[in-house]
Amino acid sequence: MRLVQFRRRGEGASIRVGVEQGEGHSVVDLKAFDPSMPSTMRELLELGDKGLECAQRALASGKCVVDRADIQLLSPVTGPEKVVCVGMNYRDHCLEQNAPIPKEPIIFNKFPSAITGPYDDIILPSESQEVDWEVELAFVIGRRGKHIKEEDALSYVAGFTVANDVSARDWQMKRNGKQWLLGKTFDSFCPLGPALVTTDTVTDPHNLSIRCLVNGDTVQDSNTDQIIFKTAALVAWVSKFVTLIPGDVFLTGTPPGVGAFRKPPIFLKKGDVVECQIEQLGSIINKVV
Amino acid sequence: MRLVQFRRRGEGASIRVGVEQGEGHSVVDLKAFDPSMPSTMRELLELGDKGLECAQRALASGKCVVDRADIQLLSPVTGPEKVVCVGMNYRDHCLEQNAPIPKEPIIFNKFPSAITGPYDDIILPSESQEVDWEVELAFVIGRRGKHIKEEDALSYVAGFTVANDVSARDWQMKRNGKQWLLGKTFDSFCPLGPALVTTDTVTDPHNLSIRCLVNGDTVQDSNTDQIIFKTAALVAWVSKFVTLIPGDVFLTGTPPGVGAFRKPPIFLKKGDVVECQIEQLGSIINKVV
Repeated sequence: MRLVQFRRRGEGASIRVGVEQGEGHSVVDLKAFDPSMPSTMRELLELGDKGLECAQRALASGKCVVDRADIQLLSPVTGPEKVVCVGMNYRDHCLEQNAPIPKEPIIFNKFPSAITGPYDDIILPSESQEVDWEVELAFVIGRRGKHIKEEDALSYVAGFTVANDVSARDWQMKRNGKQWLLGKTFDSFCPLGPALVTTDTVTDPHNLSIRCLVNGDTVQDSNTDQIIFKTAALVAWVSKFVTLIPGDVFLTGTPPGVGAFRKPPIFLKKGDVVECQIEQLGSIINKVV
Repeated sequence: MRLVQFRRRGEGASIRVGVEQGEGHSVVDLKAFDPSMPSTMRELLELGDKGLECAQRALASGKCVVDRADIQLLSPVTGPEKVVCVGMNYRDHCLEQNAPIPKEPIIFNKFPSAITGPYDDIILPSESQEVDWEVELAFVIGRRGKHIKEEDALSYVAGFTVANDVSARDWQMKRNGKQWLLGKTFDSFCPLGPALVTTDTVTDPHNLSIRCLVNGDTVQDSNTDQIIFKTAALVAWVSKFVTLIPGDVFLTGTPPGVGAFRKPPIFLKKGDVVECQIEQLGSIINKVV
């Protein structure tokens, strides 16, 4: 299934959960199908199997379908407790920097306030001159857990989506005592979407082509088979430290081709359009304003 | 006012907002006084002046009083969007480390899952051998804002409370690519409380004695007048990067006397009791288990 969050156009600010009838196709409104269902993805995930089974029935019913033209797609998850990010997690990205392959995951984060929709604008802050792209495979936690074993970890994952880990390199690398948080967490620096593709629907999340295009030019082009610490390893690792809960988002790191390591470096400017694509999951397209 | 979150003993898991009749005294149950009021602090703060005025009426009424013995006090805020922390923010703590006074605030964070109550246990993780204390003045945002001017910043602060920025030094300093997050965010590593003391009730938040005691011995003893970047400066600084919303918690850094810089270093062990005290705000007392 392709689960989405959306808002009907012209109907005020009410957020809804839906199921796409196919990538980019019409959406079944879950709460219209069953008024007992919640209106946010985080609440739906908290229901566990009961929520996902209802979404499957809604999709199969062919009822309560909203035309794509009538909706604005939002990030598939909003307001998670955590946005967990992983640094240096693609073999080819480490090679690009002449950096050693990490022996343990490097974990940092963004505030949830950085999340924005799959087609929303990336707001260029006046505080940074070095805003860069990073296409990433993201996954979302579906079940509460602590000290999760690696062999059980995939059962804690609800599904996968596409992220852009937008990064202000000047703040990430040179300021704030070299703590990455501020450079990673400006408002709008975490476009997500277009859909939360449930785990059962993805053939192999670690064998998907992954690309980033800026103004139509391919700038990143790799495969998720280059990921060093894969989904299960990351769930097990992070749950040593913190209790994971439904809705928590993980960004799994970026392949080579970011602007900062080009010679000369290239950074985003107003008017640029960034597209992040992952096979089977879809594309997010964000204009820089 | 001294706003708290609590739970009646033996009544299941329902969280309530209350107003203390004085430090450590009985608590007025806000929702019992006015059933239209919310049951969490974050929602109360989202109501703005309307919520605080209702709390004042509830306190003045002398009604709906719950005896202290019948309640468990929780952290005054739970589930905020952000827990913003500041490093190296006391002049005397910088001197202790022979470190220069920072020219800009150093911002890092904990996940909200680290928050625990004022008298709850600090859980010593088996993953760390170097768990340390840090008493800190904390404040809580009461109003949504971005790009807040320093001269307006205090009007965005709902009040102050006491925090212990518990820190696993091995993970903070030596591992995770020197990103501090993991060492700072183990579950239970952010005791907060006992009350959110509203801004109007604190004489001068930057002239308060601040102390930490471990097993009754004073290990940190300073004054918030040593803070380098004060409340208004921190609100203005962080709101350059992110939109602040009601409930966001800031920990403003620790004075000298942490275990890591002692010769030899001292770290917390099972059975230790850590008390963090700030003048006018109160004490939090957490046992290490």
